[in-house]
Amino acid sequence: MAQPREAYWKKCKGSRLEALNFNFQGINMSLIVQKFGGTSVVDIERIKNVARRVTTVFDQDNDVVVILSAMAGVTDNLIKLAGQASAAPSKRELDVLLATGEQTTAALLAMILKDMHYPAQSLLGYQAEVVTDGTFGNARILGVGTRRIKEMVAKKKIAVVAGFQGCDPKGNITTLGRGGSDTSAVAIASALNADMCEIYTDVDGIYTTDPNICARARKIDKICYEEMLEMASLGAKVLQIRSVEVAKKYNVHVHVRSSFSDEEGTMVVSEDSGMERLVVSGITCNNNEARITLRKVPDRPGIAASIFTPIADAGIQVDMIVQNTRSNGKNDLTFTVPVENFDMALEIGNKVAAEIGAEEVLGDKNIAKVSVVGVGMKNHSGVAAKMFGTLAAENINIRLITTSEIRISCVVTEKYAELAVRALHTAFGLDKE
Amino acid sequence: MAQPREAYWKKCKGSRLEALNFNFQGINMSLIVQKFGGTSVVDIERIKNVARRVTTVFDQDNDVVVILSAMAGVTDNLIKLAGQASAAPSKRELDVLLATGEQTTAALLAMILKDMHYPAQSLLGYQAEVVTDGTFGNARILGVGTRRIKEMVAKKKIAVVAGFQGCDPKGNITTLGRGGSDTSAVAIASALNADMCEIYTDVDGIYTTDPNICARARKIDKICYEEMLEMASLGAKVLQIRSVEVAKKYNVHVHVRSSFSDEEGTMVVSEDSGMERLVVSGITCNNNEARITLRKVPDRPGIAASIFTPIADAGIQVDMIVQNTRSNGKNDLTFTVPVENFDMALEIGNKVAAEIGAEEVLGDKNIAKVSVVGVGMKNHSGVAAKMFGTLAAENINIRLITTSEIRISCVVTEKYAELAVRALHTAFGLDKE
Repeated sequence: MAQPREAYWKKCKGSRLEALNFNFQGINMSLIVQKFGGTSVVDIERIKNVARRVTTVFDQDNDVVVILSAMAGVTDNLIKLAGQASAAPSKRELDVLLATGEQTTAALLAMILKDMHYPAQSLLGYQAEVVTDGTFGNARILGVGTRRIKEMVAKKKIAVVAGFQGCDPKGNITTLGRGGSDTSAVAIASALNADMCEIYTDVDGIYTTDPNICARARKIDKICYEEMLEMASLGAKVLQIRSVEVAKKYNVHVHVRSSFSDEEGTMVVSEDSGMERLVVSGITCNNNEARITLRKVPDRPGIAASIFTPIADAGIQVDMIVQNTRSNGKNDLTFTVPVENFDMALEIGNKVAAEIGAEEVLGDKNIAKVSVVGVGMKNHSGVAAKMFGTLAAENINIRLITTSEIRISCVVTEKYAELAVRALHTAFGLDKE
Repeated sequence: MAQPREAYWKKCKGSRLEALNFNFQGINMSLIVQKFGGTSVVDIERIKNVARRVTTVFDQDNDVVVILSAMAGVTDNLIKLAGQASAAPSKRELDVLLATGEQTTAALLAMILKDMHYPAQSLLGYQAEVVTDGTFGNARILGVGTRRIKEMVAKKKIAVVAGFQGCDPKGNITTLGRGGSDTSAVAIASALNADMCEIYTDVDGIYTTDPNICARARKIDKICYEEMLEMASLGAKVLQIRSVEVAKKYNVHVHVRSSFSDEEGTMVVSEDSGMERLVVSGITCNNNEARITLRKVPDRPGIAASIFTPIADAGIQVDMIVQNTRSNGKNDLTFTVPVENFDMALEIGNKVAAEIGAEEVLGDKNIAKVSVVGVGMKNHSGVAAKMFGTLAAENINIRLITTSEIRISCVVTEKYAELAVRALHTAFGLDKE
């Protein structure tokens, strides 16, 4: 019989991951964590499909731990139900309610697996010892006590864990926030020292850009944690950001792939693990921000605080902040906020402008943030110049620029966003053949 | 302010329950357990109605612990869903699935109570420390560790406990069988030494007989545990039988009442607590049994075992067993089984009859068991004679008779069952004025 771990890596297209501290000697099997998202478990037929995937890997002599989301739509329906009960539902109780979603799918998959004569058993968050802090609705995992899962694995049982949920140290049920099952999976994979964490979703991997915007987008075979973080936070909604942070921190090997095909997806790996060194790995676009500019702000210490303190107090998250110095001792201060907070932020901006003697407040909802992302740019100069040149060649005006070590973002007028993405995609050599 | 406990007893129409070892001195409040069934929590409006009942009692300076069922219909729908997943769903996983029903209502009620500014919190079975044996689907409560509930009560918090569920000593979720929330409520009331366990349901109490059969049926103010057990097991489906057994064992005072009216319901109490000594308290009727008779069975030791062992092995519960001795050393052996097991039982009966040399096997699905129940008959003679005489006066033939200390049951042809009930109801003086 083939050695499944080796077979697995081989399937992963010549990855050099095996260099990463694995001990092949005497080990014939891998421990694989498989996470299935809401669309993969939306009805009994789909859950049966999940069961087939699980058993295929199990039959190849692997240990398998499965993490499930709720059926697609169920969490939203439960939130609606809670909204009928209370205009501002207790967060503790909302978590108790929402946790039923994953409890349902975990029980159903375990039933189906047992029906197929596989030794499966469901575990809820607290049973899997997923211990979180007490931030109901958006809890952070403090640790995963793996006693019970390891016991099951030792007995060759398939543990089917309800994702998205845990319990705080007092035993209250908590949930991890939208997309939290990804984080459940990565945290459990890390605690178990699993060989691979497979994230099954309704897309077949991470793309160089949104295929709906750019027909020439192509699937990325390998992406590093840092890039994935930038991609996730910029709008590629495949993985919960926090799950990538956890994967990065504990070096969990994540494989994002489709539950509807056998195609390889995208491996999310550490930067030093044999990645092709592309300068730019992907282009992202975010239309959900709005821009606010305070013009001719007096150049005094404390001015920035006087603006951003009331904004923060209103619970508004500011993304980009740019300040240009003008010649006459006055500055222009521009920042972006989520578009749904635009009106409130503008109101606050106007109030503060009057107080501090700024000349004018301008706002614009019709903007888009287009970014190029790639760890390669740490070692390559000229990426920014190429980006600006490409946009200029298309006559697209750049309104705002920010950069990080592995990302350059330009705010442009929204109607040019798709053109910008396509042009950059071609310019950086990402188009598929 | 009135002393709520006294007020409560007063409301309970001059009950002599206060003689039952209560210490009124220095106590201004009662601990009331309130259980609401599926129709009482079927939608948000109904749950809000439950919240009003809970807060009314809480506002009268009582401590309140609430036990909830799932929304009516939800458990059945979950069983259907499990049936789509597996023809014979794993009982462990079915319990995980079913437990979501009560989890949902408990979270919703706690939300609503908090919305009304009451200090409420939901507790699932394992959080309320309802520890059961490991018989999934029909678990028995081994004990209720009241630490967490008592902590909440001490802090004047309303504990909203998901009924029907518990966990076994290994931490697996279990459920208590249909109607199990009644047993949850009574067991928790007992563990807390509660002053009262109110069972809110969609009927306004226990009736002398089924009002659908007999228009002159009347509500019983007080019934003793033993009678309630006979009533429950004979078809009055208001309380789970096991809950009455637990109430009897631990002397829990149960008040069965409607969640849709403020009327007093029926108090279920111990026999010595000031009950009116009616000879017969109620008439019940059960159409769900079928009769099988083996005629001319040889009179040898071990014959009964040779019949009932294969019946038991097939998982068929036998109710009545009657044997008459015939003159020629042969006996007729008659027994009743649930009507859904009739065909299988008849097949087994035919097989055994051939083996042991019985002459003939007869079966009849069209029977009904009519019973008169009352602790009073322990001290009264003539109840049986009156029952037989009443049926004879209506020309109703009695096919089978069994008795217990407080019950006499007659099997009659099904079409005469309602007439029999009405005649007995009148004969034993139960008709309402």
